[in-house]
Amino acid sequence: MKQYCFGVDIGGTAIKLGLFETSGELVEKWMLPTRREQQSQYVLLDIAESIQQKCRGKGISTEEILGIGYGVPGIVSADGVVIRSGNLEWQNKPVTKELTELTGLPVKGGNDVNTAALGEWWQGAAKGYENVVMLTLGTGIGGAVIADGRLIIGATGGAGEIGHIHVEDACSIPCACGGCGCAQQFSSATGVVRMAGELLAESDIPSILRNKEITAKDVFDAVKAGGALAKEVAEKFGKYLGKALATVVVTVEPELFLIGGGVSKAGNIILDYIRKYYKAYAYPGFRNKPFVLAELGNDAGIYGAAAYFLNIE
Amino acid sequence: MKQYCFGVDIGGTAIKLGLFETSGELVEKWMLPTRREQQSQYVLLDIAESIQQKCRGKGISTEEILGIGYGVPGIVSADGVVIRSGNLEWQNKPVTKELTELTGLPVKGGNDVNTAALGEWWQGAAKGYENVVMLTLGTGIGGAVIADGRLIIGATGGAGEIGHIHVEDACSIPCACGGCGCAQQFSSATGVVRMAGELLAESDIPSILRNKEITAKDVFDAVKAGGALAKEVAEKFGKYLGKALATVVVTVEPELFLIGGGVSKAGNIILDYIRKYYKAYAYPGFRNKPFVLAELGNDAGIYGAAAYFLNIE
Repeated sequence: MKQYCFGVDIGGTAIKLGLFETSGELVEKWMLPTRREQQSQYVLLDIAESIQQKCRGKGISTEEILGIGYGVPGIVSADGVVIRSGNLEWQNKPVTKELTELTGLPVKGGNDVNTAALGEWWQGAAKGYENVVMLTLGTGIGGAVIADGRLIIGATGGAGEIGHIHVEDACSIPCACGGCGCAQQFSSATGVVRMAGELLAESDIPSILRNKEITAKDVFDAVKAGGALAKEVAEKFGKYLGKALATVVVTVEPELFLIGGGVSKAGNIILDYIRKYYKAYAYPGFRNKPFVLAELGNDAGIYGAAAYFLNIE
Repeated sequence: MKQYCFGVDIGGTAIKLGLFETSGELVEKWMLPTRREQQSQYVLLDIAESIQQKCRGKGISTEEILGIGYGVPGIVSADGVVIRSGNLEWQNKPVTKELTELTGLPVKGGNDVNTAALGEWWQGAAKGYENVVMLTLGTGIGGAVIADGRLIIGATGGAGEIGHIHVEDACSIPCACGGCGCAQQFSSATGVVRMAGELLAESDIPSILRNKEITAKDVFDAVKAGGALAKEVAEKFGKYLGKALATVVVTVEPELFLIGGGVSKAGNIILDYIRKYYKAYAYPGFRNKPFVLAELGNDAGIYGAAAYFLNIE
């Protein structure tokens, strides 16, 4: 009986692996360093060997394994070719095909941010919901839309790219996508740090954020401590993300919004700021949609990779 | 063999009916007047009798009919209760249940604008596409989202309510939904006429639109004739709808956008204005998504009602 699957979260410094029962229980998790030498050419080999070793150690036969899901930082085509992954120096690398050949197991994978969002739906804070919009607020903003119990992919895999909703006409700094005024420019970890930096440079307002390297968490910690400048940043963070999600709610109407990623570690305070502006812009009948924080933390990647394998046809 | 189904478009003045082969061919279409006396209480009876009469006339037995789809102007719950229909004076009327009892056939139905959009997917300009966003620009803006070959419903039926995407912070006129600055306030037929009226009142620009009752089509006819004031209205129309669709494309990523409803009778010129602004606001990789006009015209309602029956689980 096929009762196991693997979830592999391929990062630029470490590879996180999880052995799951297909029911969703995490049997064991472990890590490998990412060998980035020679365009990360040993990475898939290392993963395959590690999985085979784990199976031997646990006495699990190939027949008991449904397959492997993976998440990778970069653009992944629908048929599992990593078009580009800057961190790993991969270009047009057929990861699904290669990992299938190396392991003899079915493999499916996608962008790590999108797959991570799925973990929360499978075994985290969005478990049991049929209609969910999930966001990962990190370096950028990743997202995933579940509608009627299925992940929406879109024509070429672009569904859920909610970070690129245009929310500000007056923004003159280009986004990584080539557009301008995307939600990601304000409400990602990078955006929060950039806005804080700009405000610090422009004003003389005293702030505990001055004269140090800051993170998005630092900004929200300063908000909790009552910092005026940090609060101004938090308002902008909430305004742009709330505005973006108000457009999303009338397009796919989820039961709840789930917020994860690095910024979400600041806790419920980020939801307060998002909700404030979401309510101002959203369709009146949908203003009370719940917002919840992700629960899986650093394990979201492996859960999500496994969920991606199990839920994508 | 069940090879037929009916599509019923229940309007405030007329009921349009279509007998379809389940393959999509329209066998016959006809109309009945909407008897609105006594809270339109005879409407469902009239529909049932007309369908039974049609079957007798065609020699079609109940066994050959898969069922009946209907569209109704108003809010319809997922289980087929018309929560409110102003035109028909229905409130909490279990239309699906009543029509099932009257005909002995399976029945499914929804809001007429949403069902009409489906007609284009079944047998119109969006036929064969797996990922489509369809808009009906009429008194309001209705919409439907097809993702991976399935209609997205949302948690409570609110998916596709694209007319209520917030696109203008500075708008002070409330929308019918209770919100403010919705796309529908600018890019519906009503919105176009309102904006034209405002510009006519504010300015002395000569225009063939002055001193008469105007429609959205009149405004776009004036654009074609080179009218400066009409062009200003068309720019606003395009700006707000283009902006709304730029948010939609990164949420569900359709293969194409389909535009129907009364405003679409003005022809390709409306697409030019939508596209101009859509391109300015959309994610760069998705700026060339095609925009097409609806094809089914006045039959969209019956096609869509039948499609709704056939495609909704």
